[in-house]
Amino acid sequence: MALTPARTMPGVLELLPLDQIAFQRMLDTIRRNYERFGFLPVETPAIEFSDVLLTKTGGETERQVYFVQSTGALAKEGTPELALRFDLTVPLARYVAEHEHDLSFPFRRYQMQRVYRGERAQRGRFREFYQCDIDVIGKDGLSVRYDAEIPAVIYSVFRELDIGPFTIQLNNRKLMRGYFESLGIADGERQMLVLREVDKLDKRGADYVRDTLTGEGFGLSAEVAGKILDFVQVRSTSLEDAFGKLDALGSGPEALEQGRAELKEVLGLIRDFGVPESHFALNLSIARGLDYYTGTVYETTLNEHPQIGSICSGGRYENLASQYTKSKLPGVGISIGLTRLYWQLRDAGLVDTARSTVDVLVTQMDEARMPAYLALASELRGAGIATEVVLEGGKLGKQFKYADRAGIRFVVVLGEDELAKGVVTVKDLRREDQFEVARTELVKTLRVELEQAAAMG
Amino acid sequence: MALTPARTMPGVLELLPLDQIAFQRMLDTIRRNYERFGFLPVETPAIEFSDVLLTKTGGETERQVYFVQSTGALAKEGTPELALRFDLTVPLARYVAEHEHDLSFPFRRYQMQRVYRGERAQRGRFREFYQCDIDVIGKDGLSVRYDAEIPAVIYSVFRELDIGPFTIQLNNRKLMRGYFESLGIADGERQMLVLREVDKLDKRGADYVRDTLTGEGFGLSAEVAGKILDFVQVRSTSLEDAFGKLDALGSGPEALEQGRAELKEVLGLIRDFGVPESHFALNLSIARGLDYYTGTVYETTLNEHPQIGSICSGGRYENLASQYTKSKLPGVGISIGLTRLYWQLRDAGLVDTARSTVDVLVTQMDEARMPAYLALASELRGAGIATEVVLEGGKLGKQFKYADRAGIRFVVVLGEDELAKGVVTVKDLRREDQFEVARTELVKTLRVELEQAAAMG
Repeated sequence: MALTPARTMPGVLELLPLDQIAFQRMLDTIRRNYERFGFLPVETPAIEFSDVLLTKTGGETERQVYFVQSTGALAKEGTPELALRFDLTVPLARYVAEHEHDLSFPFRRYQMQRVYRGERAQRGRFREFYQCDIDVIGKDGLSVRYDAEIPAVIYSVFRELDIGPFTIQLNNRKLMRGYFESLGIADGERQMLVLREVDKLDKRGADYVRDTLTGEGFGLSAEVAGKILDFVQVRSTSLEDAFGKLDALGSGPEALEQGRAELKEVLGLIRDFGVPESHFALNLSIARGLDYYTGTVYETTLNEHPQIGSICSGGRYENLASQYTKSKLPGVGISIGLTRLYWQLRDAGLVDTARSTVDVLVTQMDEARMPAYLALASELRGAGIATEVVLEGGKLGKQFKYADRAGIRFVVVLGEDELAKGVVTVKDLRREDQFEVARTELVKTLRVELEQAAAMG
Repeated sequence: MALTPARTMPGVLELLPLDQIAFQRMLDTIRRNYERFGFLPVETPAIEFSDVLLTKTGGETERQVYFVQSTGALAKEGTPELALRFDLTVPLARYVAEHEHDLSFPFRRYQMQRVYRGERAQRGRFREFYQCDIDVIGKDGLSVRYDAEIPAVIYSVFRELDIGPFTIQLNNRKLMRGYFESLGIADGERQMLVLREVDKLDKRGADYVRDTLTGEGFGLSAEVAGKILDFVQVRSTSLEDAFGKLDALGSGPEALEQGRAELKEVLGLIRDFGVPESHFALNLSIARGLDYYTGTVYETTLNEHPQIGSICSGGRYENLASQYTKSKLPGVGISIGLTRLYWQLRDAGLVDTARSTVDVLVTQMDEARMPAYLALASELRGAGIATEVVLEGGKLGKQFKYADRAGIRFVVVLGEDELAKGVVTVKDLRREDQFEVARTELVKTLRVELEQAAAMG
């Protein structure tokens, strides 16, 4: 039989076991923090009805959708009935609308699953990737206080992920809208076009952006262009500084006043939630491309790795599920694109291949003693210590080498000498050290060693 | 805008949050046990190349495959290039073949992901479901001892899942093949046909099966048919009984002798692995439909719910990935179809909706005291206690009702009285009890309560 080359499609991140362990630890950390803040788990099917999935999306998204067909449906004409989710927000909207009467509001859910996009293959672009989302959904209304809780969750997650200093950056779409209105740019679409130009500030510089805004396409006055550039360059260095800079914007239309009041309340509460002032700031350039957001918007960046861009983004929206239900469901949420983040962190040398999930390897000296090895392994497992037993014989040196290569730190040797003396020899492959311990003390000793190892990361 | 009805496709199991928590706890238990036995995590993409996925499968599977196409690819003729995995075994074979040189052998992996089958919609049939698999893959060879380790893992998993008494049932394909040969049924396909008839024993009874086997289609003698029926009805009640019944089969061709020797070694070792004799048994009717298995085969049943059928099945195979690589990769493994199992257990009243993952709700008495509530919540979260704060005001009674409905057991009240006295009132909604505790003792007290609650299940 001719062999089929074993390969995966481009745009997926498939990991070797020790990398998968590192990735899994990040997932576990995120889940633990989401749960600590009282978010409840939800999982939805990867496959949804196409008409349910594609109610709101524009052409761009539609072109990236993966449609799904069983063999029987392949021959049919037209758009396939099924498709893979491209984010977790549309499935959330569908979920809340479908199960509305069985949920308690405010509904706090987290969801950590893979999503699918038929992107063109390109370095750093993934066709399948994890999103780790939280959202709080209100019924009819939702206090702006929830907008302050989200950064507290972000802070908790990234502090524990321990990938370096970070800043949660906030803006408010109403404030932006109001400010643009006060400059005579009232049309929402025109505001978006201006923002898209302003987004090029970092890459092209202020002069380029100013020229564009005052050029034929936009036709803004030099004064207005200058004010826009000043506005989007506002950053705060402390809570007091943020309040001062918000006040310095001067009075303006209702949207501006409302946005400013919301931002002030949110910023103040974030501090009350225990987030240090060093970890959140005003950044009036943040718009978040989507029309979707209507109030607070967030981005989070690593201070020492700005090139990575936002590692966690989101915001407040007016109505989650207007395509499915007449109920008004305002909400606020964020998303961590973990596959891309992990890939970038690994690329930047910020995450290592993990230690194995296997704590101990029990070696095999003499196959006649197998029952003794198995009893020892059972004892360790019973104490919650992950243990592998060598069931296939072979030289002891080869067994050590296997443990080393597999990232297993502790190797246990139980030879005739040890059995006679009631002891066990433990080899610590990381410290390149070995010691003898009484059989009765083994579990306790290994537990201490493993706790120390875990504490040291 | 006309509303789109929010709905999922038939054949998926979407859960409400408290059920999702119960499901997630089962996933966590399985993962913990797999890791305890030294299996390493692997995740593979849901989408694979069709030619990679469909090398080995027959027509039946092919008809159940979900093909995947991006919008751009829809117009193209022929079989789509991409498809969703229908199990975790083919992706494992692809993974091991692709990464062979980066893996250590014996390679022990677990994989817990969703798989997809375009089944006809039918009660209890799922189109998307979790499989939780372990496999040990050897290079060139793999000791039969690994066949004994698998039941030790099964025992550990189901004991901790705590869904009632169960029995791991074993057979060996070589033993079966050898016995059939000794009766003059040497052809593999004919053996399978006979086994398929024998499978109807429970439903149709011995007379019906005997009539079929001695009838026109098979044309076996009454003696041979009787021997087959006797063989497949062999069950053991203890290890000694199993050995006795294996010996009683008498001598036979090489395959029978080899199968018997393997079964004896495996059964003996299972006991050495610490599995009580009450939890494993010989069952010579087990064949596992697939041609795939070549030696030991397993099924696991709940003693008190035989109608649920096998909750965990698998076996030994000769060569994992012959379609992708010339390397010989024998292995042994099992799969738990968790979605179906959970659904069946819930149907039989064996799993409850879980307590919430949220341990504590901090109520809101006076919005001016918000900083005090937030500080309290931070303290609890810092101690690992999952805490939700009521950020939207409302009557206290309504807040209690929310907690009750959401399955949150402990509600904390911090009113002016409590603040003045330096205490906190804790309401235990399950016990319908409340008590006052010094603010400084709160974390300790709640921890004890939560540990007790967890211990009592």
